[in-house]
Amino acid sequence: MAQYNEIRTEVSNGVLTIVLNRPDRLNAWTNVMEAEVQQAVRAAGVDESIRVIVVTGEGRGFCAGADMAGLQSIQDKGEAREEAGADRSNPIEDIYPGRFGYLYACPKPIVAAINGACAGIGLIFALYADLRYCAEEAKFTTAFAQRGLIAEHGIAWLLPRLIGEANALDLLFTARKFDGKEAASLGLVNAAYPVAELMSKVNDVTQHLATQVSPRSVAIMKRQIRETYFQSFEQSLDVANREMEESFGTFDFKEGVDSFVERRPPAFQGR
Amino acid sequence: MAQYNEIRTEVSNGVLTIVLNRPDRLNAWTNVMEAEVQQAVRAAGVDESIRVIVVTGEGRGFCAGADMAGLQSIQDKGEAREEAGADRSNPIEDIYPGRFGYLYACPKPIVAAINGACAGIGLIFALYADLRYCAEEAKFTTAFAQRGLIAEHGIAWLLPRLIGEANALDLLFTARKFDGKEAASLGLVNAAYPVAELMSKVNDVTQHLATQVSPRSVAIMKRQIRETYFQSFEQSLDVANREMEESFGTFDFKEGVDSFVERRPPAFQGR
Amino acid sequence: MAQYNEIRTEVSNGVLTIVLNRPDRLNAWTNVMEAEVQQAVRAAGVDESIRVIVVTGEGRGFCAGADMAGLQSIQDKGEAREEAGADRSNPIEDIYPGRFGYLYACPKPIVAAINGACAGIGLIFALYADLRYCAEEAKFTTAFAQRGLIAEHGIAWLLPRLIGEANALDLLFTARKFDGKEAASLGLVNAAYPVAELMSKVNDVTQHLATQVSPRSVAIMKRQIRETYFQSFEQSLDVANREMEESFGTFDFKEGVDSFVERRPPAFQGR
Repeated sequence: MAQYNEIRTEVSNGVLTIVLNRPDRLNAWTNVMEAEVQQAVRAAGVDESIRVIVVTGEGRGFCAGADMAGLQSIQDKGEAREEAGADRSNPIEDIYPGRFGYLYACPKPIVAAINGACAGIGLIFALYADLRYCAEEAKFTTAFAQRGLIAEHGIAWLLPRLIGEANALDLLFTARKFDGKEAASLGLVNAAYPVAELMSKVNDVTQHLATQVSPRSVAIMKRQIRETYFQSFEQSLDVANREMEESFGTFDFKEGVDSFVERRPPAFQGR
Repeated sequence: MAQYNEIRTEVSNGVLTIVLNRPDRLNAWTNVMEAEVQQAVRAAGVDESIRVIVVTGEGRGFCAGADMAGLQSIQDKGEAREEAGADRSNPIEDIYPGRFGYLYACPKPIVAAINGACAGIGLIFALYADLRYCAEEAKFTTAFAQRGLIAEHGIAWLLPRLIGEANALDLLFTARKFDGKEAASLGLVNAAYPVAELMSKVNDVTQHLATQVSPRSVAIMKRQIRETYFQSFEQSLDVANREMEESFGTFDFKEGVDSFVERRPPAFQGR
Repeated sequence: MAQYNEIRTEVSNGVLTIVLNRPDRLNAWTNVMEAEVQQAVRAAGVDESIRVIVVTGEGRGFCAGADMAGLQSIQDKGEAREEAGADRSNPIEDIYPGRFGYLYACPKPIVAAINGACAGIGLIFALYADLRYCAEEAKFTTAFAQRGLIAEHGIAWLLPRLIGEANALDLLFTARKFDGKEAASLGLVNAAYPVAELMSKVNDVTQHLATQVSPRSVAIMKRQIRETYFQSFEQSLDVANREMEESFGTFDFKEGVDSFVERRPPAFQGR
């Protein structure tokens, strides 16, 4: 397993957990952290033993936003922060545009377990995950308008489509703090739980995903959904018809029907 | 009235009810059923005496998904199921792409009364209806990922736009079962009622639609909304302006204003 | 301050309040009212002393829809109502298409305080605001289908994207009345309050917007979000990256970081 400085990783039962690991700074986002997350996600994307990826934070926070030292350095220079040290030549990244496109490109489901403070670029990172569960006590904020910043990295496009325009404008314009319960009621996260129960609930979902559904199905569905952001309804239907035909010839389709008819758990192979 | 083998139809007070009628199989979807539903919907689309279409299921289920015998036959052959026996030359079908495009093309509102199990292609069929009411006790599942299948027939495009990306990914990736109450809270259906009250509540809506609103208005609105899936905001505005001008010269506009001013029920004629 | 006949305006602490002022007609919409609202919004858009715009109604209603006298006149003539007396050559209007595009083009946040009846074109006007708060007691209806009219001025495009397709079709097809509490639960408004508390709650939001966030940030975010209706995700990401870079050189970014680090309220200047 790779050695990291600002994240920590664990693998258990087909689930890779990536832990943002700067707990004394509420896991504030840095270029090093970003490069390490990206490396871990890409490696898991091509590792057949991994079926699900969880991202969470060490200690009390999830990710409190951009590291203030970094922001102050940009402010001093009046110029752009350096982009994270991503390998721009990696083809996986080119499928989807933008700084977080590699998360969409990853063929495994990515689950954010938002254990605490989730702000600014930390919130954007979480929005690019596929599923989001949070602690009821977690504090969220878009933050940008209170820093003189703008709707960064696609959040202007994503947030209205996720929680509706009215709520998206509220959260972006006011940059107000809101808790995990409200995040759930807005549809920003899939569910909120007391912080003590969060990882157990996330484990239920990830074990289900790792054992009860076809990883091939999930990978194709993820691509189908992410592709709709760049295609018309008609194009999406064409892809669905082609993928449906192909799925009929797979082991996982045979196994899915057989296990159902035989009333036994499936043993999917992802092919 | 046409004779059908796998559906049953009733007409009452301007409402056509199409009943999926294989109750011993929880109305599992077959090519015969699909062709019959399509025939009934098309006929109602051009029948001036019909103002609203209801689709529901006989017995305990709504539609439990693709018929297992059909799926096993595909599995045995490792090739595509035959498409339903639709008349591909019928121009009504060409307005919207896809297997269920004829439901969008129908100028009458289509109301799904989901009385019980609603899974796989049964759920997709319901998603192409205009309004959806369900029994609180009804069980839903996307099913595909548990069968090694993919997001079929446009559900990858439709579901995130209906219930938000976070919930859409949850339901598609996990294929978990959820009940009618959750379907309502997700926005997947318009409302959930105890099963004993469902058809009475649906009747309230359909009688309102059949008597209190202009069928011309509803037909144009349905087209306006379905067209937005294939057009820009600017194109949608142009259509609205043209349709608004045309509506000013109609009987139904005159009747709508007169009945309001005279404080009496309207008697719309759909022209 | 300009003299108006059918609206009234007040300025307080950086907030312009536009009051629709035909209380004996529940502020029914007329061409004069529309031209006056447009003039007031445009003037506020370029007035540096104004940071937020509120629109509300005098008396019991917000806006009960098109003035019936106007509708009956159209009905008599069987032809189009005259368009409001907008100055079509004003470039601000050309940024966004449609009759209400000037509300999107205004760089200040527009908050609708829906104090009572909100119907037809009154509802459309409110939908083009950025944030919406309403009285729990307020009555809403789309109205069009009960008048033989169609989904006017972009509501066919906007409403499904705001509250989901299922609820949008319900409200448009049935034209049923619903109250402020339901409007909030549908996501049509940001929140509903008892009518006696409405303006106080709106004041909390507008004072926060006027003092706690960068007006430059809000103006750019508003444009970013409104532009997404006419652009792809990829184009939106490109705009965000360019705007992010530019924001790093601004006074408001420096002030946003400094005030945070110094734990004091910000004093943004909008540049």
